[in-house]
Amino acid sequence: MPTAAKGWGVESPTDEPHPIQFERRDPRPDDVAIKISHCGICHSDLHFAHNDWGISSYPMIPGHEIVGMVTETGASVTRFKAGDRVAVGCLVDSCRKCEFCISGQEQFCVEGATFTYGVPDRHGELTQGGYSEHVLVREEFVCRVPDSIAMAEAAPLLCAGITTYSPLKRWGVKQGHRVAVAGMGGLGHMAVKLATAMGASVTVLTTSPEKAAAARAAGAGDVLVSTDAAAMGAAAGRFHLIVDTVPVTHDVQPYAALLRPNGTLVVVGALAPLPDVSGFQLIFGNRAIAGSAIGGLAETQEMLEFCAAHGIVPEIELIRGAQIPAAWDSLKKGDVAHRFVIDVESGL
Amino acid sequence: MPTAAKGWGVESPTDEPHPIQFERRDPRPDDVAIKISHCGICHSDLHFAHNDWGISSYPMIPGHEIVGMVTETGASVTRFKAGDRVAVGCLVDSCRKCEFCISGQEQFCVEGATFTYGVPDRHGELTQGGYSEHVLVREEFVCRVPDSIAMAEAAPLLCAGITTYSPLKRWGVKQGHRVAVAGMGGLGHMAVKLATAMGASVTVLTTSPEKAAAARAAGAGDVLVSTDAAAMGAAAGRFHLIVDTVPVTHDVQPYAALLRPNGTLVVVGALAPLPDVSGFQLIFGNRAIAGSAIGGLAETQEMLEFCAAHGIVPEIELIRGAQIPAAWDSLKKGDVAHRFVIDVESGL
Repeated sequence: MPTAAKGWGVESPTDEPHPIQFERRDPRPDDVAIKISHCGICHSDLHFAHNDWGISSYPMIPGHEIVGMVTETGASVTRFKAGDRVAVGCLVDSCRKCEFCISGQEQFCVEGATFTYGVPDRHGELTQGGYSEHVLVREEFVCRVPDSIAMAEAAPLLCAGITTYSPLKRWGVKQGHRVAVAGMGGLGHMAVKLATAMGASVTVLTTSPEKAAAARAAGAGDVLVSTDAAAMGAAAGRFHLIVDTVPVTHDVQPYAALLRPNGTLVVVGALAPLPDVSGFQLIFGNRAIAGSAIGGLAETQEMLEFCAAHGIVPEIELIRGAQIPAAWDSLKKGDVAHRFVIDVESGL
Repeated sequence: MPTAAKGWGVESPTDEPHPIQFERRDPRPDDVAIKISHCGICHSDLHFAHNDWGISSYPMIPGHEIVGMVTETGASVTRFKAGDRVAVGCLVDSCRKCEFCISGQEQFCVEGATFTYGVPDRHGELTQGGYSEHVLVREEFVCRVPDSIAMAEAAPLLCAGITTYSPLKRWGVKQGHRVAVAGMGGLGHMAVKLATAMGASVTVLTTSPEKAAAARAAGAGDVLVSTDAAAMGAAAGRFHLIVDTVPVTHDVQPYAALLRPNGTLVVVGALAPLPDVSGFQLIFGNRAIAGSAIGGLAETQEMLEFCAAHGIVPEIELIRGAQIPAAWDSLKKGDVAHRFVIDVESGL
């Protein structure tokens, strides 16, 4: 039986977020039923709501940084029981048979992974996200929240955390490396904390000098204002890796000039055209410009354990449902160096 | 005492190659004196001659694919003796103390590596290349030509060989990988042979259907004409690595669309601006666009041994000095799927 649920969402690409009554799909045998306690707000929620990528279905309840407590489990569920503290990120299903699923990169499933909200799932039913009271998720796509991490603080790890953890791991960040993080928002501040915990010395690149304090509080040893040509020139060739979290189109050449030989600039935010890159800059220095998208389920769980082991939590601002429109406005302006988290259990 | 030498070269950026009498610098204690037998012609010789990169000095004797025999050695030389079969590539000196020199990437020397021709060396004397009868090179920058490789065929390995070997190694090409090579010229045909020897199945991407036979002869299992939209669409997501040897500016997005998740497009030819890349394409697939420049001395020697072990030699066309202008014209037109090699000992 579908279950009535209250949520916040949009009914068209031009809609503003508002309360919506909707129905959760019927439970399946491999489902974990989760009472949501908190859900983080990701910049991509705005892109999905506005159908910027052309794949959105409506009505849409956004939210893919979901944490909560298991209330019930389907007949075939073996790994979870009622009362477990759990989390759900950007994915809720995939084929689980292809080479990418088998190797732990469900996000690249050859049949197409199922996003947590706004798209038809593998059974043809529309997925709905975490700006809501409860959710059903196939057990293999549910993570455990380590005991030492508070639920509210765990939420942003499910997207902002894994999106920055995955490229830092792939590109081998370690003790002695110099890492720069471009952009000091929800992703950026997590990248600073994670890279610092991996032993790197971290510099934040920002257009907003007023974010320097937040950058240093997160662990950055240095802050470079990217409009300061002299400072940027002095930093040429300095970094092993740059994690570029800028969420809109931008010129990557000034950042790439800061890479050491063999260094990589990883774009994690800009799902947009990036103007001319320089073949010269890439070739004379064996440099790379790469992209990175979230991470698989095993890596997401690994990231949660890493955060628990290193005492890493995001900077959050708890909000109620009624504050969602204002939070989206702040994200549009790009003036937040933390993550908004909806306190669902206190009042959606 | 400087020594008189005959060569072919240019005296200004607008000059056509012609015979030039010039003087080789005084020998130094760490020099190996080499009687040049052959020198390959690289597309970058044209760029250097025309000062396309703004660092050229004149008069200039080009040529950085040099092979020959040792005639004399300086007092401090220990690794070579008269009669040795040797080779010299793109570099003739570097600081040999910085982290890059120590780790075998002399091309990224923090003090700046010294190119084989057209620039002042670390003593302030102009370097002159291999379109000439003899050359003096610091011993650490001299490689050995394996006995099984003919001198004429060894020459192109010093630039075309190492430029394609190095990225294939760095990006881990192995048995079972699918590798594409864009461009079927001097670099491209070497990339096909090397990747095939590493166990990859290789596809050539070309705008010239008439190069299909040469591609297959080099080992390519497949040829994709990059202007054939249907064929390109069918190949989406196919390749682990693409070695892009196109020597001029071009749109890399159609190639990048052929990469599998986690795949890399390595640009080795286009020292030029590359139009818009797609953040979307890079992020949704953890793809990368990288550059790669030649290789260090140890890797160059390793490549020579690899070619000897696998019986890999470039396709060459032997020419005399008088044919240099015509060879340059052919390279400008891009209609050669092999390497021109100047047969210096038969007649410069």
